[in-house]
Amino acid sequence: MKIALMMEFSQAPKNPVVLKQLQDVAATQGHEVFNVGMDGENDHRLTYIHLGICAALMLNSGAADFVVSGCGTGQGALMSLNAWPGVYCGYCIEPTDAFLFAQVNNGNALAIPYAKGYGWGAEINIGYIFEKAFGGERGQGYPAERRESQVANAGILASVKQGASKDLVAGLQAIDPELVKQAVGGARFQKAFFDNARDEKLRAYVSSVLGK
Amino acid sequence: MKIALMMEFSQAPKNPVVLKQLQDVAATQGHEVFNVGMDGENDHRLTYIHLGICAALMLNSGAADFVVSGCGTGQGALMSLNAWPGVYCGYCIEPTDAFLFAQVNNGNALAIPYAKGYGWGAEINIGYIFEKAFGGERGQGYPAERRESQVANAGILASVKQGASKDLVAGLQAIDPELVKQAVGGARFQKAFFDNARDEKLRAYVSSVLGK
Amino acid sequence: MKIALMMEFSQAPKNPVVLKQLQDVAATQGHEVFNVGMDGENDHRLTYIHLGICAALMLNSGAADFVVSGCGTGQGALMSLNAWPGVYCGYCIEPTDAFLFAQVNNGNALAIPYAKGYGWGAEINIGYIFEKAFGGERGQGYPAERRESQVANAGILASVKQGASKDLVAGLQAIDPELVKQAVGGARFQKAFFDNARDEKLRAYVSSVLGK
Amino acid sequence: MKIALMMEFSQAPKNPVVLKQLQDVAATQGHEVFNVGMDGENDHRLTYIHLGICAALMLNSGAADFVVSGCGTGQGALMSLNAWPGVYCGYCIEPTDAFLFAQVNNGNALAIPYAKGYGWGAEINIGYIFEKAFGGERGQGYPAERRESQVANAGILASVKQGASKDLVAGLQAIDPELVKQAVGGARFQKAFFDNARDEKLRAYVSSVLGK
Repeated sequence: MKIALMMEFSQAPKNPVVLKQLQDVAATQGHEVFNVGMDGENDHRLTYIHLGICAALMLNSGAADFVVSGCGTGQGALMSLNAWPGVYCGYCIEPTDAFLFAQVNNGNALAIPYAKGYGWGAEINIGYIFEKAFGGERGQGYPAERRESQVANAGILASVKQGASKDLVAGLQAIDPELVKQAVGGARFQKAFFDNARDEKLRAYVSSVLGK
Repeated sequence: MKIALMMEFSQAPKNPVVLKQLQDVAATQGHEVFNVGMDGENDHRLTYIHLGICAALMLNSGAADFVVSGCGTGQGALMSLNAWPGVYCGYCIEPTDAFLFAQVNNGNALAIPYAKGYGWGAEINIGYIFEKAFGGERGQGYPAERRESQVANAGILASVKQGASKDLVAGLQAIDPELVKQAVGGARFQKAFFDNARDEKLRAYVSSVLGK
Repeated sequence: MKIALMMEFSQAPKNPVVLKQLQDVAATQGHEVFNVGMDGENDHRLTYIHLGICAALMLNSGAADFVVSGCGTGQGALMSLNAWPGVYCGYCIEPTDAFLFAQVNNGNALAIPYAKGYGWGAEINIGYIFEKAFGGERGQGYPAERRESQVANAGILASVKQGASKDLVAGLQAIDPELVKQAVGGARFQKAFFDNARDEKLRAYVSSVLGK
Repeated sequence: MKIALMMEFSQAPKNPVVLKQLQDVAATQGHEVFNVGMDGENDHRLTYIHLGICAALMLNSGAADFVVSGCGTGQGALMSLNAWPGVYCGYCIEPTDAFLFAQVNNGNALAIPYAKGYGWGAEINIGYIFEKAFGGERGQGYPAERRESQVANAGILASVKQGASKDLVAGLQAIDPELVKQAVGGARFQKAFFDNARDEKLRAYVSSVLGK
């Protein structure tokens, strides 16, 4: 799996700690990690609004299979990511959340609180979350006998989001252009996106935003 | 405040318990409560998909100021509600989540897990969540010095959702019509909606769905 | 109720924040608060071991009705307090824990983690914990129908602790004297103890330790 | 490691679920499990009071290296176990608690809430707790630079408990004899105890209680 980690300004100093946990788990489980958000306080500035745009572009283009986002409480990232089509973002404070989200909802993004509840042992907890989020088979349902109904609802959610939203590029064109420009302005985002994105329309759109 | 509680099939038997907690808090704080989802196992069937539609209609029409939703883990409701414009749904497992969401994000909906973590004391916890969700001034920021930036981001999120989404009626017309029909099919939903909705376009749309 | 707050060296800088939360709740509910542990990094040094001794003296002498203790994870304080007769210390990370402990166990002390999970909103959470710990009638059982059995077990626990332990003074005399000396060495502890302790034997013992 | 699981009457029906999680982890990590408490509603009746006695006997005799206890909220078991010398019981609601308790306190028992917070995914969470409680090296400190002070305090706690308590047999003889008799009355407890206990005095004492 290709996993994109994206963190915003308010918790950017924690990026090295979170990234290390993700890389450790990914190394064990054979995933690839892209660190496409802020990596410290002085990096290219992103808010949870930008994370939503980044996540939509990474996931809808196939550049990433999964996005790990978050903010101070995680709630801003949660709402911002779920605003876009093709993004199914759950909320996770401990490993069992990650397991259940994978089994019941089989979404493609998580929002994690990096300030709320973040004290001693927080990085350990985040490591355990990653372990359980990415470690096993997904979409098996929980409890197991509800699998069929849960898989069906996940499918319906996908079609509802498609119906409720504009086409992704149309949606991005309908918001403040500075937001998109800032969202795609980071070098690490651009590298991960252009190295991996398979959707030509989205590649062309991001190129045009960047004036390429 | 007008608060709409909406629960889906998997946790419908818990509706009387949750409703009582909400009513007790609302009575103390002077809010009005509408119980517009399932009130037991044999009620008009709703999934978290329908809750998203109900929430979008109640909030965008002004029929409710706040929606309390949820499902087994709360994650399905969370994603489904946030798929729609005008709905800003946080996730809440304990009272401090409710406080922070009110201060930092000032959203208009909560998703609560009614099966995950739901054991002894769960109804007490839910009562405390309601107490802190609806009890004080909202949008004050946390920590206080970040208020300005947090309020600004909440405003940007609103405009981004507007941009990303179709107009609500257009969105509802773009999904499986049976989903909307089922979502608005309950008598308690209809009463709360038509008694309180102030948006003529949405009133007309729901009437048309109901063949009125 | 007379409530003694006692914090140890590792989290002493948080004492003003925790104390304020406790005082705010106590003011509303009509309790008296003694801040008998460390009030900052440079105060008379106490570890969770000393907190156990302080708590045993305050509670068994009647100088306090309830003790709020804690440490980094809260577990050291928890074990140290429960080592002594007459001390019944629960563990609390959120308000419902406090409610259930009051109803089911009706103990006289809490251990709180002041570093584990301590991030944004932690002081809010601690305020809510105090609100629910001290706000209502205690010992009502939970669920209510188990009250009789729960009250009975709390009584049996008291007699078991009495049986398992030496008399308190004998126990204190059986440990390293430097530990007791350090535990009772703080001016705020001494004031709260001698102003309120009703047990002559314990008063005499503490006086003797202090060379008075 | 020899791990003794002991559950009381109020949550006895969950014993098979908890035992399976413990056995699965133990099989992976090479531990031995004894199920010495209740295994269902109709088994030899034990309360959290009895669990304290069972734990003290298993741990002080060397019959077990670690005890997993608990009750509805876990707080009764917590206080009851910690009442006895040689028992160092932490409280655990999620895997990071288990990790930190192992590193910081290096105790020999855990109390787990089997009703509070016990909903969907609870057995998964308990499995993760066991995984992290028994999986790695213990007593390494957290944060690592506090190791020395944390190890020192754990040692002091041991000597304090020794000082505060009577000798274990003397303590057991000082409480209601029916409590001890009931505590040691189960066949699975007796088998695990007599197969593994290395302390002759405790073996003789339990034999005498059983009229052997």
